[in-house]
Amino acid sequence: MIIKDLSHLTKDEKKQILNRGEGVDSEIVKEIVESVKRNGDRALKDYTARFDGAELEALLVSEDEFADAEKTANPVVARQIKSAYENILSYHKKQAEEEWWTEEEGRRLGQILRPVESVGCYVPGGRAFYPSTVLMSAVPAKVAGVKRIVVTTPPQPDGRVNEHTLIACKIAGVSEVYKVGGAQAIAALTYGTESISKVDMIVGPGNIYVTAAKKAVYGDVGIDMLAGPSEVLIIADSTCKPGFIAADIRAQAEHDPNASCVLVSTDRKVIDAVSEELKSDALETLAALENAALLFAEDLDSAIDFSNEYAPEHLEIMTSDDEAVLTGIQSAGSIFLGPYSPVAAGDYASGPNHILPTGGCARFQSGLNVGHFLKHISVQRLTRHGLDGIGEAVTGLAEAEGLKYHSESVKKRLK
Amino acid sequence: MIIKDLSHLTKDEKKQILNRGEGVDSEIVKEIVESVKRNGDRALKDYTARFDGAELEALLVSEDEFADAEKTANPVVARQIKSAYENILSYHKKQAEEEWWTEEEGRRLGQILRPVESVGCYVPGGRAFYPSTVLMSAVPAKVAGVKRIVVTTPPQPDGRVNEHTLIACKIAGVSEVYKVGGAQAIAALTYGTESISKVDMIVGPGNIYVTAAKKAVYGDVGIDMLAGPSEVLIIADSTCKPGFIAADIRAQAEHDPNASCVLVSTDRKVIDAVSEELKSDALETLAALENAALLFAEDLDSAIDFSNEYAPEHLEIMTSDDEAVLTGIQSAGSIFLGPYSPVAAGDYASGPNHILPTGGCARFQSGLNVGHFLKHISVQRLTRHGLDGIGEAVTGLAEAEGLKYHSESVKKRLK
Repeated sequence: MIIKDLSHLTKDEKKQILNRGEGVDSEIVKEIVESVKRNGDRALKDYTARFDGAELEALLVSEDEFADAEKTANPVVARQIKSAYENILSYHKKQAEEEWWTEEEGRRLGQILRPVESVGCYVPGGRAFYPSTVLMSAVPAKVAGVKRIVVTTPPQPDGRVNEHTLIACKIAGVSEVYKVGGAQAIAALTYGTESISKVDMIVGPGNIYVTAAKKAVYGDVGIDMLAGPSEVLIIADSTCKPGFIAADIRAQAEHDPNASCVLVSTDRKVIDAVSEELKSDALETLAALENAALLFAEDLDSAIDFSNEYAPEHLEIMTSDDEAVLTGIQSAGSIFLGPYSPVAAGDYASGPNHILPTGGCARFQSGLNVGHFLKHISVQRLTRHGLDGIGEAVTGLAEAEGLKYHSESVKKRLK
Repeated sequence: MIIKDLSHLTKDEKKQILNRGEGVDSEIVKEIVESVKRNGDRALKDYTARFDGAELEALLVSEDEFADAEKTANPVVARQIKSAYENILSYHKKQAEEEWWTEEEGRRLGQILRPVESVGCYVPGGRAFYPSTVLMSAVPAKVAGVKRIVVTTPPQPDGRVNEHTLIACKIAGVSEVYKVGGAQAIAALTYGTESISKVDMIVGPGNIYVTAAKKAVYGDVGIDMLAGPSEVLIIADSTCKPGFIAADIRAQAEHDPNASCVLVSTDRKVIDAVSEELKSDALETLAALENAALLFAEDLDSAIDFSNEYAPEHLEIMTSDDEAVLTGIQSAGSIFLGPYSPVAAGDYASGPNHILPTGGCARFQSGLNVGHFLKHISVQRLTRHGLDGIGEAVTGLAEAEGLKYHSESVKKRLK
């Protein structure tokens, strides 16, 4: 654990904290993508046997498997999925956008909206399973009006998909679920195979191979973002409850040994208390805690500056005036205000999305939202009079740029 | 030129029309990016000497050079740039978005907006120059509230930047202009050099090296899209004016030998007339015309279906009921309705953006707009009561997913 004054961090220490994330050997990923492109289902089944230990007959989850899931699912968990779904749906409906038109001097201009037609949601799986990620990826797509929503997730070694993941698919209106994970799933969604029709856009988090594959296929298909290990940054002053902070840091650390946890506090006592609590009562050693950074800031302004430079995926603010701090925040994936808003609430059930930019990408990217699934298309209809009004600017600029046929296409109409 | 019935296209012919665009040797691009990362300004100057034939002292365009541009610029063109700027500004202001908040059962949820802090606009240059692209990339950034807007453009062999490009930068409020182009400009904007501070996001069109470099650095920096050669698809029935269509096809073809031009008409006479006109009165041979496709469709529905599969950058609709056709359109970068809305109008001065998805990316991507420069950040503040209300769903789902410390972070607060 790094425990230090923000103003005393060496350049290297600062770099170490800011440059989180990890690389991947993209040659392996390229090989997998090419092999799926060439060999289709056969490649998918080979990789699934090799990486997931599952020998599959069919990639598509059958109606029977869905029926089994309904039978074996814990009814309490099924109800909780439904309740989380309702809150997520309600939040994302607020993101719906409207088309608009405007008219001026013979120029009728507008912006229309069209949903992406088909979307693939990557849901991590295998030993773990994430029904919550099904909801977070499928719900905004559904709200945008996407017709075909496909889930791919690596199967368990017994060749099945977890029953709660399937329940979440059912609730979220997913049309097809395929048992395939990793870079091979991304390749299949992009280029299609015998069993899997290609999609227009791929969203959702995954391991480094999935992320590298998303980057490799980007352009042939749309993607939401390139997400890496999860992270939290907490801004806290003397009014916070250190016990809550320690709990949230521990929760973040359990995601992944590469998760990043940073506390920036204006109170040394808070740092001491959090550090004590993290050391004392952990039931097990979480690798990510070793890289946690507890930093002392002279004042909230320096804490805010550091947070903006870090651009965290999750930002918790626990101060005497959270709203004042919020006005200074420029970059974050999702923000949690006050003592009763742990990241876990947003991970599952409060409503906002949990598919968020990591590794500093919050400087330029938004968490998954309905807008990702909507194409904003500009439309124009000019009358002869309208074209005449801008004719000189168009022909003049076209000629200045050396594009005479551009100019000609206007002149011909105004003759 | 391909002149054929849509329903008679062989699979290969259809593929040839749909799979436009081009590849690039990404190894060269990787090499350039690495070299700029390692050697900074020195690499930029070396590449500029090699690729642009310009030996530069300084990369930054000086105040003196701006003053010179004001003196040497054609005042008529300067006025036309200003007039185009006004229309582009007015259209993009309509894209501004609003923050929102909602409150329910102790959960206050919202979405706040923050502009990306710094943006690099790539503007093609060298022999050609594109003041219009300066406006199209900088104006939406400005409307979003971006503070630092940088332009990079390859210099002319004499080491200067075209005066009208500089006038456009001045009008659009660009803070810095650097004389560097190609993959080396993209690397400099991403990683920074001695002269060029790095930016958070890069936008704007470029040649295949620029596009490959944008893909390579994506993730370390935000990008708008991966755009290739320009293209138009025109849907026309018997009511259209074939002369206007021929003019627009010729204008599209003059951009680039790899530009794509497709007419889909329900009237064979229109196809004949357009074909005749393209053959007869061209003042010179445009390479892209050789690959143009003039296709006959049985009815407007099949024309619309083909257009949606093609997902054109520019879509012109010239029929007896353009609005009816518009309702069927699912994918396009920008749409032009009726006889007096040539693509050239939108390229320069009608208002909508001309930086648009190509090569079928309109299936999943929007033209450049204000939203590209805005981060949509979800915010939540739960009261104890609010957390209690969703507590069971959070702890239940966290435990079902095997994340006990997530559950613990909620339980601790509700104790």
